[in-house]
Amino acid sequence: MKLFSSVNNVNDINALVKEGLEIKKNPFAFQHLGKNKTIGLVFMNPSLRTRMSTQKAAMNLGMNVMVLNIDKEGWALELRDGVKMDGATVEHIREAAAVMGQYVDILGLRSFPGLKDREEDYGEVIFNKFVELCGVPVVSLESATRHPLQSLADLITIEELKTKPHPKVVLTWAPHVKALPQAVPNSFAEWMCKADVDFTIAHPAGLELSTAFTQGAIITHNQDEALQDADFIYVKNWSAFEPYGKVIPGNEDWMLTNEKLKNTNNAKIMHCLPVRRDLELSSEILDGPNSIVIKEAANREWAAQAVLKKMLEGL
Amino acid sequence: MKLFSSVNNVNDINALVKEGLEIKKNPFAFQHLGKNKTIGLVFMNPSLRTRMSTQKAAMNLGMNVMVLNIDKEGWALELRDGVKMDGATVEHIREAAAVMGQYVDILGLRSFPGLKDREEDYGEVIFNKFVELCGVPVVSLESATRHPLQSLADLITIEELKTKPHPKVVLTWAPHVKALPQAVPNSFAEWMCKADVDFTIAHPAGLELSTAFTQGAIITHNQDEALQDADFIYVKNWSAFEPYGKVIPGNEDWMLTNEKLKNTNNAKIMHCLPVRRDLELSSEILDGPNSIVIKEAANREWAAQAVLKKMLEGL
Amino acid sequence: MKLFSSVNNVNDINALVKEGLEIKKNPFAFQHLGKNKTIGLVFMNPSLRTRMSTQKAAMNLGMNVMVLNIDKEGWALELRDGVKMDGATVEHIREAAAVMGQYVDILGLRSFPGLKDREEDYGEVIFNKFVELCGVPVVSLESATRHPLQSLADLITIEELKTKPHPKVVLTWAPHVKALPQAVPNSFAEWMCKADVDFTIAHPAGLELSTAFTQGAIITHNQDEALQDADFIYVKNWSAFEPYGKVIPGNEDWMLTNEKLKNTNNAKIMHCLPVRRDLELSSEILDGPNSIVIKEAANREWAAQAVLKKMLEGL
Repeated sequence: MKLFSSVNNVNDINALVKEGLEIKKNPFAFQHLGKNKTIGLVFMNPSLRTRMSTQKAAMNLGMNVMVLNIDKEGWALELRDGVKMDGATVEHIREAAAVMGQYVDILGLRSFPGLKDREEDYGEVIFNKFVELCGVPVVSLESATRHPLQSLADLITIEELKTKPHPKVVLTWAPHVKALPQAVPNSFAEWMCKADVDFTIAHPAGLELSTAFTQGAIITHNQDEALQDADFIYVKNWSAFEPYGKVIPGNEDWMLTNEKLKNTNNAKIMHCLPVRRDLELSSEILDGPNSIVIKEAANREWAAQAVLKKMLEGL
Repeated sequence: MKLFSSVNNVNDINALVKEGLEIKKNPFAFQHLGKNKTIGLVFMNPSLRTRMSTQKAAMNLGMNVMVLNIDKEGWALELRDGVKMDGATVEHIREAAAVMGQYVDILGLRSFPGLKDREEDYGEVIFNKFVELCGVPVVSLESATRHPLQSLADLITIEELKTKPHPKVVLTWAPHVKALPQAVPNSFAEWMCKADVDFTIAHPAGLELSTAFTQGAIITHNQDEALQDADFIYVKNWSAFEPYGKVIPGNEDWMLTNEKLKNTNNAKIMHCLPVRRDLELSSEILDGPNSIVIKEAANREWAAQAVLKKMLEGL
Repeated sequence: MKLFSSVNNVNDINALVKEGLEIKKNPFAFQHLGKNKTIGLVFMNPSLRTRMSTQKAAMNLGMNVMVLNIDKEGWALELRDGVKMDGATVEHIREAAAVMGQYVDILGLRSFPGLKDREEDYGEVIFNKFVELCGVPVVSLESATRHPLQSLADLITIEELKTKPHPKVVLTWAPHVKALPQAVPNSFAEWMCKADVDFTIAHPAGLELSTAFTQGAIITHNQDEALQDADFIYVKNWSAFEPYGKVIPGNEDWMLTNEKLKNTNNAKIMHCLPVRRDLELSSEILDGPNSIVIKEAANREWAAQAVLKKMLEGL
């Protein structure tokens, strides 16, 4: 595996999920693969779960890890070509990406969207430039439009905790006060559409995701209907795709509560975290028996390790 | 050992001190204990000695180390229960603590007091929430009211450098321009009260420490009297316990000088560092033969390693 | 080797260059040297290449690495002796340096100049205090007036890519909008003056470097003349030595272009990076066949590793 930035980089998602669950049972079995190999984890934005779980996964595999908070420890990057760099940016992404690739065997990169220019964000300009220029395999630690390590962990969690072969999975929009990226719901949607699940997306009118990620999903504006008989409910806010990056006011009643779980199949509740309590998701759910958000976060380690193992095997 | 946040977590402080001194002679003897074990060092505040010494101690034991400056690299944490998180905080401590515990075998946490609300600080809300929720052993890297790794290093240093079985140890308040926590003096006091030393605390009127930490100590407002025949003098500023967190003006003459050492037993001078020269402690002492502050700092490594070794043995 | 801060610390620069090239062929051959040894990399300023390449080099040698961004994670340092520390500085460099030396076997330090006080910068006050007080070997990660790991990597690159025994090397000044240190050109100059090359420095009038670094170099204000028959061209901006730290306006035509390469010997173009495109150096060169800036950056790893190997051998 030379690139892990979307579900499209994976030949067999069931095999990868299975690999993650195997690794979870025996995390230190493949340390020969990572000996004298180094991953660079480059963060342009904050990170807690991704940072810790990927670092841990790499160490489980015997790798060395270098973490670079490029937003704080490095230089302000110029992304545009053909500009005279006489302003605030100190280094061009062309040099930065190529140089980083010299010191690592695998590069992990986190780069959030600006949520101002849809074409730029959905063009994945920063992420793709790194892929193009760094010369080593790249794993996304969340890019402008996708968060594939999260989605793989989500699918591992569903596989691990499902009680029937073909569970009903519902992605339901949640209220928020800030404009959040569409990366997590996009990514979750494109993974679920390829997984062996019955997949429904529920959101208020005006909050349609890009159809590029939702082919095959049932999409509805009726949350109650969507939740009916759900086995897993994935809660997540996102800002509008059109008009891009905007918060659509109202819809506070979309927050999930125990009351709304009544007609589900005692649904397990998922969230990628961080979650704003009692805004996105009620405390009663997060602190109750239906929440599996911590188990889901724990599986980030095995998702990352399954992907890094594949990359190491390909070096 | 499942928790190291105060002297009360230690069954036999003499044995732990002895262990620290043994480890100092042979730092790499226990690397099997840490193999494939990971410590997460989580900092909510700056740190130099604690950061480096604990990281080094863990590596001496063969552990992997992940450092998280959560104040800069992660998300702003919500500490209160039952609030709708529609403000500046992005993640609740409940999720953050539980998640971090998934990726590490031992968690180290630094969390300073706010010095605004005594009940909150002395309730150790943040630290205790992590202990309650993370699910793994926790070592304090300094909490709101205690700094036990410092105190253990202090006691190791006294044991190492004492020239009589039962030395006189004096904790003396020092001037400062900022309001500092009581964590170091509280902690030093509660350790000294249990150690095999003759322990005196000297401070200006109005700067009494909480009596919870000083049971058994001689307490005086007369610095000269306190210093008489002292073998070790521990210099430290702290802000008032009542009114909480306030700087009491005046008392600049409490700064220790060579002149004041005259009636001591050629006392060795200690300070946890960082120290403000010629405000808290005179340069002539810091640069002179009586200062043992660098040896004391060096012993931070062995204190941390003794504690981590105990924790690893209990995993 | 106890200190690596300038070319003067190196007995035989040809042997060191050769060692770097040997290590490049076999990076993991000396891991026994670094076992249970720790390097502390202390940054007072941002760093990308130096940070990553030195960390990687140390790991290649089997060392443990601790990174400290002291400007963000530690305490504000006081540099002056004899001042009452009642202002913004929290820790004196005397304690900080001595303490850091307790936890590491080798210390790496980056400390940029202030560009306000030439005597202070050229006195290397910060760097020298660390060397004096930390008690362990020190490697410069760039100090106020020199960047020796860069220069060694530069010389390794020239040795690796030269096509004749005694190549012509030209250091040519480049335009910039900010006042930059003289560390890189100083250091490059003093290394080239001792290397087996024909060395010319070209810069506009008023931008003379300190003569302490340029003994033996041909110095000219005529860029065209300097570039004639050049085999390697090293492009770099620096601010004035006199008046110290000032940007001299004009001279934008000193930016190197393909047109200017016409009369060179198909010169290879070097830059320490980060580089401001189309201000310091044209994109057409950076993206063209003559640029060797990425190979040069890659050699930072082998330069660092050669130096650390020497230091480990001396422990």
